[in-house]
Amino acid sequence: MVPIFDKVAIIGLGLIGGSLAKAAKVEGLFKDVIGVGRNEENLKKGIDLGVIDKYTTRVVEGVSNVELVVVATPSGVIVDIIKEIVPYLRNGCIITDVGSVKEEIVKRVEAFIPDEIYFIGGHPIAGTENSGIDAAVSSLFVGRKCILTPTFRTNKNAQEKVKALWEKIGCKVILMDMVKHDKILAAVSHLPHIVAFSLINAIIGMKNYKDKLSYSAGGLKDFTRVAASHPIMWRDISLMNRDNILNCIAYFQSSLEEIKRAVTEGDSERLLSEFEESRKARRHIE
Amino acid sequence: MVPIFDKVAIIGLGLIGGSLAKAAKVEGLFKDVIGVGRNEENLKKGIDLGVIDKYTTRVVEGVSNVELVVVATPSGVIVDIIKEIVPYLRNGCIITDVGSVKEEIVKRVEAFIPDEIYFIGGHPIAGTENSGIDAAVSSLFVGRKCILTPTFRTNKNAQEKVKALWEKIGCKVILMDMVKHDKILAAVSHLPHIVAFSLINAIIGMKNYKDKLSYSAGGLKDFTRVAASHPIMWRDISLMNRDNILNCIAYFQSSLEEIKRAVTEGDSERLLSEFEESRKARRHIE
Repeated sequence: MVPIFDKVAIIGLGLIGGSLAKAAKVEGLFKDVIGVGRNEENLKKGIDLGVIDKYTTRVVEGVSNVELVVVATPSGVIVDIIKEIVPYLRNGCIITDVGSVKEEIVKRVEAFIPDEIYFIGGHPIAGTENSGIDAAVSSLFVGRKCILTPTFRTNKNAQEKVKALWEKIGCKVILMDMVKHDKILAAVSHLPHIVAFSLINAIIGMKNYKDKLSYSAGGLKDFTRVAASHPIMWRDISLMNRDNILNCIAYFQSSLEEIKRAVTEGDSERLLSEFEESRKARRHIE
Repeated sequence: MVPIFDKVAIIGLGLIGGSLAKAAKVEGLFKDVIGVGRNEENLKKGIDLGVIDKYTTRVVEGVSNVELVVVATPSGVIVDIIKEIVPYLRNGCIITDVGSVKEEIVKRVEAFIPDEIYFIGGHPIAGTENSGIDAAVSSLFVGRKCILTPTFRTNKNAQEKVKALWEKIGCKVILMDMVKHDKILAAVSHLPHIVAFSLINAIIGMKNYKDKLSYSAGGLKDFTRVAASHPIMWRDISLMNRDNILNCIAYFQSSLEEIKRAVTEGDSERLLSEFEESRKARRHIE
């Protein structure tokens, strides 16, 4: 396959960055990939695994003369990294990111990015509770949705190239308004994670929690998996999508209050209808 | 293998009852099994699958002359079924159940059961979100814990035979006080299910929820799976383990409030420590 990009820098070689590098390598989409990160050992693994061609811990050095920069760090540092590298990019360079929050990132980046550098926000809805390059797999994006959030300022050619990249590694790419993206993800991803974190912390707060956990079956195991997700990534998401998350928490709290009320009052019919309602959701999940 | 029981009645041929019948058949633990239920079509499937030898929809007829009765219905009807069959059982018959709640069942049964009939409460911690005989598999109990809740009234010989049955189909059997059982299960099973039901109902209550759900990834899929669990079973559990469940909900609500407060105030350090705390739980799950 003809490469889409000759020289590419991937900043942050974790689960997403590493999997992107792997998948693009398999498909021959990048000619020359430089991995950029703070952890030299991690970057060396990227070389050993054959997913990057070279690496540097100096971000400014890594991006000189590349055609594409993918910022695959936790959401909280994406904007600062882009601000730092912009002066060192060649004209026509495309920047995209993989952050789970889009409005704050896109708005802040568009406020300072020069016209000759093309930025488009992205978010592949993929991942596992594991993090780091060791968890990276080339198949991570196959069959997954990748949301791109262009604005009126977005360069169409850059947008098409980034879209083609995600498509060629297996994603269904969807163009979406960044505000809508953040509302949807708050509901289907951020809220569930916060609920899982809260549930696990509640159990940890109980007497003899280790003994209790030894009796856990299916249901709880799923929650502990979700609650083992990357703490820094989730701190950043919680801070950057605050209003939507708080709104979703309010929905959740009133839904829990309803069931709690029914349990308290022994309202058998209401409990049954609440639990039957829940089953509906499954039909709409792919 | 020498059968442990010659004649056995299994009342309720769903996921648990059906899987028990299958597993016991594979291991040759029952000589002659009668399936008892209300749904004739379901019982016929049991015959077709070769997991029961005969069936009846008349519970009283099904239990005459058996050595063991396993009541594998939703928790809410277990006591009434036992009350109904007791006059028709032969002396020395053993009754056990598989209900997820133990104190209410065991106390109520012991209040009326005659000395010549031996009851021991049981709860195999196994199951999936699927229900019915179609979901039954002989391996369901392999490696799972099965809790038996004997009291001072429990016949030791009956206890040993029921213990042997569960052990031979793969369970690790644990003897536990019924009150402790209900406290533990409230934390590690009942609370997570109620939280999952609440989460899914919250999302269903949002605008454009079908569109939202189409963007869900790993985390939410686990919740929808849990929330698709059998509504009647969960209604019964919610009613019968009420106080422990309400206590656990209170723990959960304060844990969620803590995270909500940190999100509201943008308390970065607190969010990080909350999310790091959650990771601990995973180490204690088998």
